[in-house]
Amino acid sequence: MLIKNNTQKRKKAIVLLSGGLDSAVTLYYAISKGYDCYCLIFEYGQRHKREIISAVNIAKKAKCNYKILKMNLPWKGSSLLDKEMRVTRPQGNKVAGEIPDTYVPGRNIIFLSFALSCAEAIGASAIFIGAHAQDYSGYPDCRGKFFKAFDRMAQEGTKTGVRGKKINIITPIINMRKSQIIKTGIKLNVPFELTWSCYKGQKTPCGNCDSCNYRAKGFKELNIKDPLIQ
Amino acid sequence: MLIKNNTQKRKKAIVLLSGGLDSAVTLYYAISKGYDCYCLIFEYGQRHKREIISAVNIAKKAKCNYKILKMNLPWKGSSLLDKEMRVTRPQGNKVAGEIPDTYVPGRNIIFLSFALSCAEAIGASAIFIGAHAQDYSGYPDCRGKFFKAFDRMAQEGTKTGVRGKKINIITPIINMRKSQIIKTGIKLNVPFELTWSCYKGQKTPCGNCDSCNYRAKGFKELNIKDPLIQ
Repeated sequence: MLIKNNTQKRKKAIVLLSGGLDSAVTLYYAISKGYDCYCLIFEYGQRHKREIISAVNIAKKAKCNYKILKMNLPWKGSSLLDKEMRVTRPQGNKVAGEIPDTYVPGRNIIFLSFALSCAEAIGASAIFIGAHAQDYSGYPDCRGKFFKAFDRMAQEGTKTGVRGKKINIITPIINMRKSQIIKTGIKLNVPFELTWSCYKGQKTPCGNCDSCNYRAKGFKELNIKDPLIQ
Repeated sequence: MLIKNNTQKRKKAIVLLSGGLDSAVTLYYAISKGYDCYCLIFEYGQRHKREIISAVNIAKKAKCNYKILKMNLPWKGSSLLDKEMRVTRPQGNKVAGEIPDTYVPGRNIIFLSFALSCAEAIGASAIFIGAHAQDYSGYPDCRGKFFKAFDRMAQEGTKTGVRGKKINIITPIINMRKSQIIKTGIKLNVPFELTWSCYKGQKTPCGNCDSCNYRAKGFKELNIKDPLIQ
C-alpha cells in the first residue's frame, strides 16, 4: 500500500456559499472529498442579508477561506430583489415549466462566472454549487441541462479549458430530495443551526415561503427537529 | 408597400461598451440595425480607467442609456489588473494557442453574464459584443466557438430561453480585420476621437502595446490619420 504524502499539494475547489442548508451540505461534502475549499459569498441586494451572516459563520466553522463579493444588479424583475413585489406563497407541486417570481435573471450564471474566474486565477480544479432538483422551484439555472451547458462554455472560454484541462462544475446534491440532503449533512456534521433558508429576512424563519416549507418537510420526513427552530 | 408604424415598440439590445474602438463601432452598428441600445460599462479595477471615461462619452454622444457596473475581481493573474506585472510588448504574429499575460480569467464570461441578466430583465432580444479575431491576441473568450457555447448556455439557463425565445449574442466584427472595422466605423460616423485603445492608462496612447499597434496598423492600411493622435 502506498503511504500518502501529507505534504503534497491538496486539490482546490471554489464553493458557492449562500448561507442556506443546501450550500452548507455542499461545502462539507467538498471538504470530505479532500478539497481545500475557497468559499464565495455574494451580496447582490437580496433582502435576506441574514443569509450572508449565516454564510460567513458556516465558512468560519468549517475553517475555510471566504470572500464576500458585493455586486449591484441594477435591474429589477425578481421579488427577491424588488421590495415592491410580494414573495408568493408556495403552491404545492409546481406545474412543469412554471417559473416563480423569486427567479433572479441570470443569477447562477453570474455566480458561476465569478467562481470560474476565481478558480482559474487560483488554480482550482472544481466549482461546487448546491443546486438541487426539488428546491429549484422551476428555476432554469438550477437544472442539470444548464450546468452541462455551462461546463461546455467554461471549456471554450478559459485558458485552462483551451489547454485541455478542466474546471469541473460539481452539483453533488442535484438529484437528492431535501430529506436526503439533510441526512447527508448529518453524516458530515454540518452545523444546521448556523444555516438560514427563509426567503424573508426576518429574525425567525417565516415558516410560509417555498424555502421554509421544503426545509420543514425535509426534517419532518426524517423525524428530526430542525435545530434552527426553537 | 407596408407603411411602418413609427409608434411600434423598438427592439432592445444590450451593448458591452469598453471605450475602445471596437465596441464603439459595435454600438453604432447595433443602432444602425434599429436597436434601442443600453450600454453596460464595467469598472473592474483595470489600470486604464481612461477607458471608462471614453465609454461614457461615446454612450452620451450616441444618445444611449448607459450604466457603469463596478465590480471587484479579488484575484490576481493578469497584467491588466495587477500593477506588479508588466504589460508585455507585442510580438508580431502570435503563435497559435499562445495566451498573453493581459488575459483576465473569465472576463468576457462575467461581462456577458451581467449583460444576459440585464437583457432578460428589460426584455432585450440581443447582446452586442465587439470581440474580433485579429485583436483577441489568443484570448480564449474572444473566439467564435466560445460565443456559440455561451449562446447555448444562455438558452438553457434563462427563463427567456426555456420558454423558447432567444437572447442572441451578436459579434458583428468578429471576422473583420482592424482596417475593416475602422472602415465600417467611418461609414457609421463613429466618433473615433472619443475612443481609447491603449492598454496603459496614460494621458496619451503609449504606441507600444498590442492594442496601440493593431489600431495604428488599421489606420495606416486605410491611409487615414487616427483622430486620437495629435
